[in-house]
Amino acid sequence: MKELEFYFEQRKKILAFQYVDFLTEWDAQTDAAPGSVSANSVYNATLSEMQYKLTTDPDFERCVNVLYKEREQLSDELRHEIEVTNKNIQNTKRIPIKEYVAFNELTAKAYPVYVQAKQTNNFELFLPYLERIVDFCRKQTVWLATESLKGYDVLLDQYEPRYTQAKYDKFFETLREKLVPFVKKKTAKISPVPQWARQKFDKAKQKEFCEYIRDVMCFDKNFGIMKESEHPFTSGMGTTDVRITTHYYEDNLISSVFSVIHETGHAIYERQCDPSLNGTFCSGGASLGLHESQSRFYENMIGRSFAFWQTHFGKLQQIFAPQLDNVSCEEFVRFINRTEASFVRTEADELTYPLHIMLRYEIEQKLISGELEVKNLPLYWKEKFTEYFGITPPNDTLGVLQDVHWAYGNFGYFPTYALGSAIAAQLYHSMNKDFDVEQSLSSGNTKQINDWLGEHVHKYGASKYPDEILRLATGEDFEPDYYVNYLIDKYSKY
Amino acid sequence: MKELEFYFEQRKKILAFQYVDFLTEWDAQTDAAPGSVSANSVYNATLSEMQYKLTTDPDFERCVNVLYKEREQLSDELRHEIEVTNKNIQNTKRIPIKEYVAFNELTAKAYPVYVQAKQTNNFELFLPYLERIVDFCRKQTVWLATESLKGYDVLLDQYEPRYTQAKYDKFFETLREKLVPFVKKKTAKISPVPQWARQKFDKAKQKEFCEYIRDVMCFDKNFGIMKESEHPFTSGMGTTDVRITTHYYEDNLISSVFSVIHETGHAIYERQCDPSLNGTFCSGGASLGLHESQSRFYENMIGRSFAFWQTHFGKLQQIFAPQLDNVSCEEFVRFINRTEASFVRTEADELTYPLHIMLRYEIEQKLISGELEVKNLPLYWKEKFTEYFGITPPNDTLGVLQDVHWAYGNFGYFPTYALGSAIAAQLYHSMNKDFDVEQSLSSGNTKQINDWLGEHVHKYGASKYPDEILRLATGEDFEPDYYVNYLIDKYSKY
Repeated sequence: MKELEFYFEQRKKILAFQYVDFLTEWDAQTDAAPGSVSANSVYNATLSEMQYKLTTDPDFERCVNVLYKEREQLSDELRHEIEVTNKNIQNTKRIPIKEYVAFNELTAKAYPVYVQAKQTNNFELFLPYLERIVDFCRKQTVWLATESLKGYDVLLDQYEPRYTQAKYDKFFETLREKLVPFVKKKTAKISPVPQWARQKFDKAKQKEFCEYIRDVMCFDKNFGIMKESEHPFTSGMGTTDVRITTHYYEDNLISSVFSVIHETGHAIYERQCDPSLNGTFCSGGASLGLHESQSRFYENMIGRSFAFWQTHFGKLQQIFAPQLDNVSCEEFVRFINRTEASFVRTEADELTYPLHIMLRYEIEQKLISGELEVKNLPLYWKEKFTEYFGITPPNDTLGVLQDVHWAYGNFGYFPTYALGSAIAAQLYHSMNKDFDVEQSLSSGNTKQINDWLGEHVHKYGASKYPDEILRLATGEDFEPDYYVNYLIDKYSKY
Repeated sequence: MKELEFYFEQRKKILAFQYVDFLTEWDAQTDAAPGSVSANSVYNATLSEMQYKLTTDPDFERCVNVLYKEREQLSDELRHEIEVTNKNIQNTKRIPIKEYVAFNELTAKAYPVYVQAKQTNNFELFLPYLERIVDFCRKQTVWLATESLKGYDVLLDQYEPRYTQAKYDKFFETLREKLVPFVKKKTAKISPVPQWARQKFDKAKQKEFCEYIRDVMCFDKNFGIMKESEHPFTSGMGTTDVRITTHYYEDNLISSVFSVIHETGHAIYERQCDPSLNGTFCSGGASLGLHESQSRFYENMIGRSFAFWQTHFGKLQQIFAPQLDNVSCEEFVRFINRTEASFVRTEADELTYPLHIMLRYEIEQKLISGELEVKNLPLYWKEKFTEYFGITPPNDTLGVLQDVHWAYGNFGYFPTYALGSAIAAQLYHSMNKDFDVEQSLSSGNTKQINDWLGEHVHKYGASKYPDEILRLATGEDFEPDYYVNYLIDKYSKY
């Protein structure tokens, strides 16, 4: 079939550009000197234009159309890939190339301005950029609208296919009803940071422990690397090149540890996709929400459990001796599970975390619909934040400027974080039906857990929709009650 | 002129691919996990094929032809660029695309085999790869032959335009005649490594001193970075993104220091090109030989001078205190200028270095002409080496396998190293006519030297041929006697 041949040829080229995207982004976030960014953005713009043209190439579109019509004859994986590619071509085509290129340039330029605005608590500086970014995203919802997807749903669909406002609204409504009152009660009493946690913890020792944790989680160094960057993240290309970063703070013993557990969770997902999906559009995770469910699973269900630290706290004590000699494992686990109302999402504890997401979800809805104007964001943020948390951010750096996502134009991204946390709880419930998860941790590593997730979630890569994979793994549709029950159960103990 | 417009458009795309080359190579040599290389080589092959097609695009060729005919109407820089681009298109076209792609794949695969062969002293393992590589290079000399360039000259021209065997033969003949007897005499008596240099030198302290040296040489961190890699190198894109690496050995105090001085020499050249050349094919250094002249200038004429260390040895003592407390600056400078017959080029001292290159030059001539077969290389190497140095390499790891260049197919590259060292001496002579170079070092930094090189060499970038730039800078053609006299003069003192 000559269409398939042409499809594979063109796919190889598009994937080569995706490889370039991965590398340039990796470089920008790790090595690149500050003064190099603006000059190099010209090359990135040229590359993104070439990629746009490859994706929307009329010959490619015709070829994908033919394959789409004949899709019932294809393998399951290829049929899914053709469906997704077909949609991707249509969506890309609907964005005028000029706007597409201009938007890429805009966000490249907006990023350093955002960083400066955050550093100097100066929203006004960032305002004209954010206005243009929001303007583009609003236009996007018009360009990409379909029968079934309109407005904010268009953006949500880019990050989590098949999860619309209707579903998210129901999810957040459950949280608002069942979780918010519990959180209010738990955060009413302040739990101070213990004296031992306020010491200075040597960076080299933190690194040593993080490398130990990476090995506990069976992350293979031959196909993966761990490096430092300002903000921890995971990226990669296929199952053979998976990269994570962390950040060490000498005044914080646990920040880098939980970053490493979180990012290694993402990494294990990438590593355990079926290798036959490498070199296709179905390699890597199925969606942001499902990806986040894996990182949160390891971070919260595993990494914050007593069972995990029962095995590994000794190693932590040993590396930092004598700094933790008088701390018991129980005290340590209580410390890593303390909860409080706080301003910054990335530093929030497991219990208050979803409230930070709810806030952003509601703001994004209003911003995209036009109900809220960009210039009114700082004030609106403070009001809403106070309503949810009972405390008011003292400035925009700790408020509306704290996250980078909007500077990249990533509207619709945040809700996947809460969704991921909730899916993690649902998977945890299912896994425990197959074996005692906490008990498996006494083996000293997470192999049994990795294997279960590999078999029930990871192996599919992006060859199915995330809701299909969840159903295959748990036998159910997404059910937020698992999450609410898990949180209330867990935090009732503390 | 619509040709110019099209030319600029196509140039932008080709440069974007060069940017990708730079980043992928940087990544491969610094971060990339060992297991990722082979899978990612598929993407690199696809990208190099796209780049080949852009360069040999018939529309682009027609456009460059028109501009070439009208070149007298263009600015000096653009005329030179069109000449070089025209030649580049013709040369690329003459290599059949299948062979071009296959060769890129071959060298990607050969590299890890070469590394293993070197590590295990197993030339036989690497032999079939090297045979295919040499075979390709021999074919290349046929494909790219012109009226004036044939055989090995075709390869030499790729690294140093306008320097043919006739010129190199004369250069090496001068060395053989005037330098070799002197080297034999100097290396006859053994100068042992002093006790103080055999200590363990903390890596973090080495790093601190290297960062100090980088600042002494006025290398701007905003547009440049310094990182670690197995083998030190410099790379970059235009004047705003310049990167160097070094390698720290705790049993060697000076290896990383001289790597940093050497690579920063390359970096300053890149940084001081006229910024108007950014985004053209004339940005960056004019040739490998001229580039090496800059790194060798800083490494040898500056970095191994007593004047330099008179100002900076105190800092070295201070950082490593008390390890160097009983060493005088004179002893240190004598140590960094000791000479001996040794097996490995990259560890050779300034005096014996060009002999290592002579050896490789003669072997390459014989390999490319077919006079020498690849399988006979190890034996031939040992014989020739013994003839030049009076000592015989105990194995191939310290012999024919020591350098990576041939694994990449870089035949014709080595001679530029000796040429660069010799050009450095010629520039040093000219600079000293304008100001007292050694005296300028008492200022504490190399600014006056950077400025002179910027004005007389760097600013031209690749907008002229290297021999033109040398003539502009020194008023003379290349003259190896400056080098011979400099070396004999200097080493007569030790």
